Amino acid sequence: MAKQPDQYLAVNPWAVIEEGFHQEKARVSESIFSLGNEYMGVRGYFDEGYSGDGLLGSYFNGVFEETDIKHPALFKGFSTRRCFMVNTVDWLYTRIYMDGEELDLAKSRFSGFVRRLDLRTGILTREFIWETENGKHLKLIFQRFLSMVRPHLGCQRLSIIPLDFSGTVDIVSGLDFSRFHQAGDDFTPLQSSMGKNFWNIEEKSWGKDAVAMMGCTKRSGQRVFSSFRLRMQDCPAMDRVEGDKLIGSSFALPLRLEEIVQYDKLVVNRAEKLVRAKTEDVWTSGMQLAQDLGDLAWDEALAEHQSYWEKVWETSDIVIEGDPENQQGVRFCIFQLHQTYHGQDARLNVGAKGLTGESYDGATFWDTETYCLPFYVFNNPKAARNLLGYRYMTLPQAMERAKELDCRGACYPMVTIDGTESCGVWQHGNLEIHVSIAVAYGIWHYMRVCGDDRFLGEEGLEMLIQICRYLASRGQWHPRTGEFGFWGVMGPDEFHMMVHNNCYTNFMAKKSLEYTLGVIRELRDKAPELLSSVSTKVGLDPAELDLWHKMADNMRIPQNKETGLFEQHDGFFDLPHLDIQSIPVTQFPLYKHWAYDRIFRSDMIKQPDVLLFLFFFSQDFSSRVKQINYCYYEPRCINESSLSPGIHSILAAELSMHDKAYAYAGFASRLDLDNYNRNTEEGLHTTSMAATWMNVVYGFGGLRSDGDVLVFNPSIPRNWRVFSFHLQYRGSLMEVGIDRDQALFRILNGSALSIRVFGREYLIDEAGLSLPMPAVRLG
Amino acid sequence: MAKQPDQYLAVNPWAVIEEGFHQEKARVSESIFSLGNEYMGVRGYFDEGYSGDGLLGSYFNGVFEETDIKHPALFKGFSTRRCFMVNTVDWLYTRIYMDGEELDLAKSRFSGFVRRLDLRTGILTREFIWETENGKHLKLIFQRFLSMVRPHLGCQRLSIIPLDFSGTVDIVSGLDFSRFHQAGDDFTPLQSSMGKNFWNIEEKSWGKDAVAMMGCTKRSGQRVFSSFRLRMQDCPAMDRVEGDKLIGSSFALPLRLEEIVQYDKLVVNRAEKLVRAKTEDVWTSGMQLAQDLGDLAWDEALAEHQSYWEKVWETSDIVIEGDPENQQGVRFCIFQLHQTYHGQDARLNVGAKGLTGESYDGATFWDTETYCLPFYVFNNPKAARNLLGYRYMTLPQAMERAKELDCRGACYPMVTIDGTESCGVWQHGNLEIHVSIAVAYGIWHYMRVCGDDRFLGEEGLEMLIQICRYLASRGQWHPRTGEFGFWGVMGPDEFHMMVHNNCYTNFMAKKSLEYTLGVIRELRDKAPELLSSVSTKVGLDPAELDLWHKMADNMRIPQNKETGLFEQHDGFFDLPHLDIQSIPVTQFPLYKHWAYDRIFRSDMIKQPDVLLFLFFFSQDFSSRVKQINYCYYEPRCINESSLSPGIHSILAAELSMHDKAYAYAGFASRLDLDNYNRNTEEGLHTTSMAATWMNVVYGFGGLRSDGDVLVFNPSIPRNWRVFSFHLQYRGSLMEVGIDRDQALFRILNGSALSIRVFGREYLIDEAGLSLPMPAVRLG
Repeated sequence: MAKQPDQYLAVNPWAVIEEGFHQEKARVSESIFSLGNEYMGVRGYFDEGYSGDGLLGSYFNGVFEETDIKHPALFKGFSTRRCFMVNTVDWLYTRIYMDGEELDLAKSRFSGFVRRLDLRTGILTREFIWETENGKHLKLIFQRFLSMVRPHLGCQRLSIIPLDFSGTVDIVSGLDFSRFHQAGDDFTPLQSSMGKNFWNIEEKSWGKDAVAMMGCTKRSGQRVFSSFRLRMQDCPAMDRVEGDKLIGSSFALPLRLEEIVQYDKLVVNRAEKLVRAKTEDVWTSGMQLAQDLGDLAWDEALAEHQSYWEKVWETSDIVIEGDPENQQGVRFCIFQLHQTYHGQDARLNVGAKGLTGESYDGATFWDTETYCLPFYVFNNPKAARNLLGYRYMTLPQAMERAKELDCRGACYPMVTIDGTESCGVWQHGNLEIHVSIAVAYGIWHYMRVCGDDRFLGEEGLEMLIQICRYLASRGQWHPRTGEFGFWGVMGPDEFHMMVHNNCYTNFMAKKSLEYTLGVIRELRDKAPELLSSVSTKVGLDPAELDLWHKMADNMRIPQNKETGLFEQHDGFFDLPHLDIQSIPVTQFPLYKHWAYDRIFRSDMIKQPDVLLFLFFFSQDFSSRVKQINYCYYEPRCINESSLSPGIHSILAAELSMHDKAYAYAGFASRLDLDNYNRNTEEGLHTTSMAATWMNVVYGFGGLRSDGDVLVFNPSIPRNWRVFSFHLQYRGSLMEVGIDRDQALFRILNGSALSIRVFGREYLIDEAGLSLPMPAVRLG
Repeated sequence: MAKQPDQYLAVNPWAVIEEGFHQEKARVSESIFSLGNEYMGVRGYFDEGYSGDGLLGSYFNGVFEETDIKHPALFKGFSTRRCFMVNTVDWLYTRIYMDGEELDLAKSRFSGFVRRLDLRTGILTREFIWETENGKHLKLIFQRFLSMVRPHLGCQRLSIIPLDFSGTVDIVSGLDFSRFHQAGDDFTPLQSSMGKNFWNIEEKSWGKDAVAMMGCTKRSGQRVFSSFRLRMQDCPAMDRVEGDKLIGSSFALPLRLEEIVQYDKLVVNRAEKLVRAKTEDVWTSGMQLAQDLGDLAWDEALAEHQSYWEKVWETSDIVIEGDPENQQGVRFCIFQLHQTYHGQDARLNVGAKGLTGESYDGATFWDTETYCLPFYVFNNPKAARNLLGYRYMTLPQAMERAKELDCRGACYPMVTIDGTESCGVWQHGNLEIHVSIAVAYGIWHYMRVCGDDRFLGEEGLEMLIQICRYLASRGQWHPRTGEFGFWGVMGPDEFHMMVHNNCYTNFMAKKSLEYTLGVIRELRDKAPELLSSVSTKVGLDPAELDLWHKMADNMRIPQNKETGLFEQHDGFFDLPHLDIQSIPVTQFPLYKHWAYDRIFRSDMIKQPDVLLFLFFFSQDFSSRVKQINYCYYEPRCINESSLSPGIHSILAAELSMHDKAYAYAGFASRLDLDNYNRNTEEGLHTTSMAATWMNVVYGFGGLRSDGDVLVFNPSIPRNWRVFSFHLQYRGSLMEVGIDRDQALFRILNGSALSIRVFGREYLIDEAGLSLPMPAVRLG
């Protein structure tokens, strides 16, 4: 827990504000001031260009380029194709000249710089006063938003006020496909000049309605159509501007002393991932979208965008009084999660860094099911449904992958954009079999909270069967005990490799098998035709079910039956002990400072493994068992994953170790705002933001959602006066408010719900229920 | 044991003969007909050029080019630089034209093709009758040898007999640096057209004494000087021939009906690995060598070469009567071992494929100490000494490597040419820590047989100390039992990875520590000054010795004390059982047909692991213990390494399983001659040839050399009438002859020796000792 904040942004409950340009943190700010609307995202780079160091990143969710993965030696089942979300068109492209001098904050003189991201409305504003070489002063205000209701629409507004002169300013506004992707091979971020451009230009046009251009990736054959139109009061003459991968208009804007002049750029983008699509069809449909925009004005677009955000905050806000830093942090997390994904398209998913950078290749990990899905099931069930739909859509790829690995059924990828395995590091991509299990867990959890029988019948059951099939073909029987389990795996911990019977993997596999068998049993009575149709489709053999039953019943779960301590995998207790406190802070992250193999030969763990399933299936375990496992594993964990502290915080809260719970939660919400890991420049830790949400709701809110009713055992950090959050559950919207004295539960919308609080069951409705809080027990 | 021979060469006790050109086996023959003299090697390619598929390979021991190793993700301690023995100058380059038609056995008409490698003299002869398009017939005889006494000298003779005409033949003879290296990234052999050339030409000259050229590798900066002179009776006019990387002379040779005309090409090559050397100096010393050749004629050069081989066979021959195939096979092995290395230069070593191909990059593995050294200690003690000298010379690299791995002392590389780690596959390069242990074992074994105190004081002890230091820093203590051991390793087996306390590794490490401590103890009395000087040099702390003592005493050796069965590593007995007989033959080699991770999750092993140390330290273990371990591990082993069957054969012989012993030995001696593994085209299995020698001497000869005297428990395969072999031991040369009735031991040279035969000690001298053989017990 030696991490230190690097705080330079103002603390504000509803905004992120940078006062004065922090040039040395340019990349960090670009990440933090990212905007996205699920369909696309742009980092908070400067519209007008910037010759200093930075990552001018503009991305479309799921639009990727691909490269070959090079292995020192290639073996069967190694992934050889890396897909990465590719940096694409700079549609905010603007260049500004006064008396021939180009505005460039790396070189120009300026003052009064303020950048502000409004979390309530999703508008990014940046203003400053430019002092030209000729001594003129202009105030410039840039604003942008990415419409949350029109996925293709991005809006930019530039306002200029000449403070001490009248004259003209020359402007070029356009689209630029020439920018560099900066993530090199092996994920390493490169210098801005070192990247590569992956685009060929297929079409360009200066049309009546819009200036447009279309690029195609060089190898994956994916296309991005981009177009813009400019709106201003007295439209000046426009000249065409063209470069190799650039298109735009240039014009001179007349300025009158102290009068504001502004123009709006409305951009319509369209991404086409279907490689077979014809160039002309993609172009035509892009142009159609651009036309469809009609006369839509900035104000209208903004109004509908704002009203979307209003609704989000109505149902998803978390209020924390008494702790402005966490208040801001947690809202920033909720904001970014909605920006990254809100369920508009089942073909998309949540990248580990969202749409805010190139690190982790914009790929989806098992974080989606284990960390993000809880946020979505309680805030946006449609989004949760669609995230699982993405796994259904990519089921064929998962089945292909299982075959490559000499298995049957569906093996979901460790790292993916298009459903294929993109993880070149075989020890992760081939051994972390719990990814498939996480999909089954996600289905189970979604069904628990949202109860969506239609999804289960149409997609869920088929996935469950194929996952079970994979598990049955991947697992083996213990030669001495006759138990079933998984040999040669890497558990969630990731600091132990080629281990046997990882406790998490085996336990969760048992749950997956049991749940699937339970669903089939239930459908046999309730919907035999549906069951029969799915069974026929997947060719299900009744003998398979018997086998799964036997496997689940005999699953090996290494545990000391006397103490209740689980053994993370066979032989874990025989690993040499390492006192992690003895490791100098300078040696973190260990992956960069330790010889690789050294990491794997002690009882040190990277992130929770046993503790994870004690949390996921909380109600299966007594406090005593949680306590003994927490006390054993937590001191052995170095939390090298940003997803890790939240789990410790949640369990610490449950076990009444409140100080520990708060300490672990401390930096999670501000991981990026205060750049705790010193790598925010590479992009935001988007999936960790979901962990932050869980940390508040499951941790201090004490929620557990693995039973038939929601369970709450709330506690409140010492310096919080009150905190409240919302939950959607089976069609109802519930508010939970907690202060030192009482816990309040109230239905805002929908029918009454049974919940269990501090061990007793209550029915809550719109009138609400207030229960006294127990005295705080210090941890 | 499903391997099948693919026999196409004639069986002959002293020669390898191909009758009729087997075009489809062109590459296999190139490997088999390779010549080498430790300094350099050439595959058996056609002197006159050949447009068909083949690998025109010409190599210099230790001359390498380098490339970057690409990793999907690079972690600390991963090797990033691959060195490979690079294909270099074709100094046999010859082109032959009749009436403008070029001789090319891929296109020309020919008959009477015979290729013959004389094992007694090391001469390769190839003859055939060429029928030109004009219907002329010429008999051509090519001969070549690489002088075993003049490392720089290669000799080629071409004899031509016009069978039905008189006229002239046009010939170009030269040096060609333009050939392609054909091993691609990741060891894959490429098509002949797909390779790369790695040479820049620095100098060329047509001098009085020789035509010469010098190339320099593009990246590693190593140089090869090559020169030739032609010798013939009536020297015709010579024209200069020059190409980009080619130099030579062309001339017309007058032919008279049925008269033989011949010329000799004497080639002087010089390899310079010192990168700092100046171009002109290397050139000058190459030219000097060429000049030094003086008037040396083919016959003289051949005579001294033949006399070298005579001596080799006098002291190293193995005679097998009654089994012509194994007789040929074992002589071929002995021949190739001498060709590859005979101790002329301590800076060189034995590549896994010798100098016969590009597979395994011409690199040295731990095979040198475990498989090759026994051959050399008993046949050529100077070579054995120099092989260990190579490890001493590369001690600085091994110490650097230990540091990279966060360890102390010396970590010897898994794969190397220049002493640095060239193994890009981290799971092998970083986890097979038994390579360093093998060096310690090699020192121990060399000292046992050769008793070379001077070596021990000058080099051996320093290596031993640095290896122990490495082991002490790499090992850890068991948290429950307090034992010392090695976590996170890969044992010799290689089908289990990241295992803990591999029995072989731990046992051999214990022996290394004990031997080192023993040497230090002995020197303390015998040579305190020497000890003190070495101790000072390496900064030895007495506390280290105490620690090593404790480590050795408490070394964890997993074993069932009741049955005596060793557990290959912690938890091996809990691995799912796989019946290896159930694997279809078509799935071998498993590395190519099974998903990589699947290989690692059963009790199947690739090659002996426990059985290896039961053999190395044979006299430490009872027959009962060997028996139970053999019966457990042998059926679990698929012998995917060509080194593997020999060990099983040796142990089976010891355990009186004679049929099994013979079956395992069956194909070892002819592994390449009959292309059992179907990959001889990539080069010969040179280090396996040493295993073949061990198989005869240790297996049927029943030799054990791990005690104070040599021990023999001979047996004889049922179809062998008699076999005999030689051993050099502590200055004496011994002959051992075994038939069904008696075993004969005789000193040919040197003082009398004590040996133990069938459990009793005898003193043998030049008079010899004959002991009756026991009745054959069938296995």
